[in-house]
Amino acid sequence: MLKFPSKARLAHIVFESDDWASKTFDVVLLVLIFLSVGVAILDSVRQIHLDYGEFLYQLEWGFTILFSIEYGLRIWLSRKPKGYIFSFYGMVDLFAILPSFLSLLVANTQLFAVVRALRFLRVLRVLKLGKHMQEAQILVAALHSSRLKIQIFVGSVLTIVLVMGTLMFLIEGPANGFTSIPVSMYWAIVTLTTVGFGDITPNTPLGQFAASLIMLLGYAIIAVPTGIVSSELTEAKRKRNKEKEVGCPKCHAGNHDFDALYCKYCGTTLP
Amino acid sequence: MLKFPSKARLAHIVFESDDWASKTFDVVLLVLIFLSVGVAILDSVRQIHLDYGEFLYQLEWGFTILFSIEYGLRIWLSRKPKGYIFSFYGMVDLFAILPSFLSLLVANTQLFAVVRALRFLRVLRVLKLGKHMQEAQILVAALHSSRLKIQIFVGSVLTIVLVMGTLMFLIEGPANGFTSIPVSMYWAIVTLTTVGFGDITPNTPLGQFAASLIMLLGYAIIAVPTGIVSSELTEAKRKRNKEKEVGCPKCHAGNHDFDALYCKYCGTTLP
Amino acid sequence: MLKFPSKARLAHIVFESDDWASKTFDVVLLVLIFLSVGVAILDSVRQIHLDYGEFLYQLEWGFTILFSIEYGLRIWLSRKPKGYIFSFYGMVDLFAILPSFLSLLVANTQLFAVVRALRFLRVLRVLKLGKHMQEAQILVAALHSSRLKIQIFVGSVLTIVLVMGTLMFLIEGPANGFTSIPVSMYWAIVTLTTVGFGDITPNTPLGQFAASLIMLLGYAIIAVPTGIVSSELTEAKRKRNKEKEVGCPKCHAGNHDFDALYCKYCGTTLP
Amino acid sequence: MLKFPSKARLAHIVFESDDWASKTFDVVLLVLIFLSVGVAILDSVRQIHLDYGEFLYQLEWGFTILFSIEYGLRIWLSRKPKGYIFSFYGMVDLFAILPSFLSLLVANTQLFAVVRALRFLRVLRVLKLGKHMQEAQILVAALHSSRLKIQIFVGSVLTIVLVMGTLMFLIEGPANGFTSIPVSMYWAIVTLTTVGFGDITPNTPLGQFAASLIMLLGYAIIAVPTGIVSSELTEAKRKRNKEKEVGCPKCHAGNHDFDALYCKYCGTTLP
Repeated sequence: MLKFPSKARLAHIVFESDDWASKTFDVVLLVLIFLSVGVAILDSVRQIHLDYGEFLYQLEWGFTILFSIEYGLRIWLSRKPKGYIFSFYGMVDLFAILPSFLSLLVANTQLFAVVRALRFLRVLRVLKLGKHMQEAQILVAALHSSRLKIQIFVGSVLTIVLVMGTLMFLIEGPANGFTSIPVSMYWAIVTLTTVGFGDITPNTPLGQFAASLIMLLGYAIIAVPTGIVSSELTEAKRKRNKEKEVGCPKCHAGNHDFDALYCKYCGTTLP
Repeated sequence: MLKFPSKARLAHIVFESDDWASKTFDVVLLVLIFLSVGVAILDSVRQIHLDYGEFLYQLEWGFTILFSIEYGLRIWLSRKPKGYIFSFYGMVDLFAILPSFLSLLVANTQLFAVVRALRFLRVLRVLKLGKHMQEAQILVAALHSSRLKIQIFVGSVLTIVLVMGTLMFLIEGPANGFTSIPVSMYWAIVTLTTVGFGDITPNTPLGQFAASLIMLLGYAIIAVPTGIVSSELTEAKRKRNKEKEVGCPKCHAGNHDFDALYCKYCGTTLP
Repeated sequence: MLKFPSKARLAHIVFESDDWASKTFDVVLLVLIFLSVGVAILDSVRQIHLDYGEFLYQLEWGFTILFSIEYGLRIWLSRKPKGYIFSFYGMVDLFAILPSFLSLLVANTQLFAVVRALRFLRVLRVLKLGKHMQEAQILVAALHSSRLKIQIFVGSVLTIVLVMGTLMFLIEGPANGFTSIPVSMYWAIVTLTTVGFGDITPNTPLGQFAASLIMLLGYAIIAVPTGIVSSELTEAKRKRNKEKEVGCPKCHAGNHDFDALYCKYCGTTLP
Repeated sequence: MLKFPSKARLAHIVFESDDWASKTFDVVLLVLIFLSVGVAILDSVRQIHLDYGEFLYQLEWGFTILFSIEYGLRIWLSRKPKGYIFSFYGMVDLFAILPSFLSLLVANTQLFAVVRALRFLRVLRVLKLGKHMQEAQILVAALHSSRLKIQIFVGSVLTIVLVMGTLMFLIEGPANGFTSIPVSMYWAIVTLTTVGFGDITPNTPLGQFAASLIMLLGYAIIAVPTGIVSSELTEAKRKRNKEKEVGCPKCHAGNHDFDALYCKYCGTTLP
């Protein structure tokens, strides 16, 4: 029979992921999260809801109970329960179980479907394994340090959308589907981002010419955010590689590698 | 009661943004600008215009009067009023109030909607805060120093559009929606930029084959402007990191490396 | 008359590509592969199948016999036949001939069309020429070393797709074509990747607003994978340029800079 | 009155662009080229052809005569007339005038429209001004040195298109618009390149799932060519910046700037 583990051991299994038991816990949790999301998705298909609705409802409750147990475990095992509850992951865990319980009180299940979708965010937790986070931090840091450039970029895009949306509204008019400035702006976004649904399209020669300008503009400015992120990531990598900036005490040559012990120019021992 | 501020203090509030009062002024102005743009947008929706047209018209005049006061203040407080009036921001400020006054004289309100849209450009002013501008300057400098490459790129794109547009006109012909070379060129732009509305599509096997080539070409050459901007930004960053602001005390040459000990032009010890 | 080559010579012709005979073998094989793929494609066009089906069927068998001979040759000439059979290219070669033989036993030819399509993978083999592979290795290495960043990225994209898909299902509903969450998620992917078929489009103002957000998001986050790959490739190139192949004669450490005169680990003069 | 220039002076005006006269010649030629292309485009619009066809025909001949004079001048003034005639620009100049003359002999004017479109390529010549070419050379060099990576990439894309095209043909079938493998491959290209016309769309759940995979794949692999070009351009720039690799004769420190005269580490005069 399985010996019931101590509280410290349980906490290790739940919060860490460095041995067999704790990794298994993470994987089982991941599978459960994916299954519960899958059930919610399947239930939205009319035919499946009609045929298996009752069964899926029971599964849903099964997952809710399992996640409730996990949520309780985490609060009980955490050293700072309050810190966990109000942390990002704590809130996500709560959102994963709350809707089912609330649905017992309130009838509007459609509303809960939105909250229930947040459950998928829990998948992120399992990604919280060592290296992953370091990589994610570089990504986040790169986005963070280029946030001003991105703000300016988004501001420019919105200005283009407003001006071109208004222009197309005046050129094409309600008769060609551009029924108002908001709709024209929606069309401008659809076009500038190169999505191009085709539900609204310019029909006059002048409108097609203006649309061509927007498309070429959109094609050109997509280069800007990409360039920003690329150069930030290259920079972030360069910085990490170059951190040893101490120069040689004899010949003053800097630019040594991370792991260098002797100056590569004169052979003096580096500090 | 509020003590009425001096002219110098007022100028500080209006033109700077480094203390409580001047920052509040900027934020209030930003909110007003967004609201006035929002009113113009809402008024274009037919149903809203019918229901609230009169009220929105009054709001419009309220904003116009507020912006007129601000415009007057800026001229009065500016050290060089002429310099302000003919500056980019001065023109934008004028365009934001002119249409409303002109509409009293002329009846064609549609025409003014275009000019009115320029009002949104005013949002850019509020972005003119310290750091933002430095970042924007890097972006603009990167685009500026790669303008020749971009010109060559745009020239190539237009050549492709012309040749492929003519080709598709000949292959598909008016029967399949390619009614003229300009329309075919519009289609080529829609396709090359990967927008793909779908209002005009090739129907013959040969046309679909030619269209496939354009799409793959468009997919491939989108890499070029992105590569250009990326490498320019990486370069701009490298340069900024490498430049030592202190110049040589003897020959006044700047542009030394971070780790330089001696001037690379005259050999003098650097400070 | 042609003298029949020795087994060693044959193996050289089949497996290498450094002289006239072996290069010709590769080119002939490439042409045969392209032709056999072309025949399979043409046969799927209804009109061509009706007119030339019998002829294409015979061609198909011709190719199958040729590829069978080649497959046999490779097994016979290979030093480790088992190693070849279970290698990636060995499996691909088998998949290229198996379907035709199986079609003699089983009637369902449609099923074999899928397997037959794998034949095209054989083209990759001919690309396996010297330099090509080195370049491919850099690409693969760049993708490999950024796989964690890409995983995080794909996870984020799927989360956005799920949340936005559910949201659009709730906003637009079955009446506007968003018949279920899976269909809504399909639409979200179509929109986020900027494909934009236009088979399903938002019709309500709120839906168009939410769609605009997804499009701008898709437009922005396309910068992330590009930035990742760009910076990895730049890094990979920098590393290769910087590595001095000669190791230190005393401590055998490699990885020295181009311009290094002394070993950075032990201070010995480098050759 | 204007003094007629000498042959040497004329050659300077026609082939160079470094003083007032030669620059004017280039600009006038550019305007003429754009006008002649514009006439060809306008003539393809049915209504304009009916109303102004005769006038445009005369304009066409005017341009042809002017370009013929220019072509004759270039042959006469060139030091190596044969070299000019068979150069890229010489061929383009010939193609710009040939169709009009041939149309006197043959009746099929549609065929000549294609050749006539090549006239636009002449615009490239005027771009041949000093700096432009250096930038273009960097672009071309970057594309050239990454051609192997691009070949591998294009090969992968075509493999994906073939496999996914066949798959979608089997899943969706002729009933849903996927009438044959070639049409399915056309659809796969439309989807993978994120163009998304929407003329053919998957209707079955399985087809929509497979389509989602293609879209995400297309979204991901667009990063690869961009990354390749970005890193090549960054590398090309780095190389140009770093060309002075000579080390200091005293302290052996390398890595000096282009314009350095003294070693930045020890102040010794650089060779």
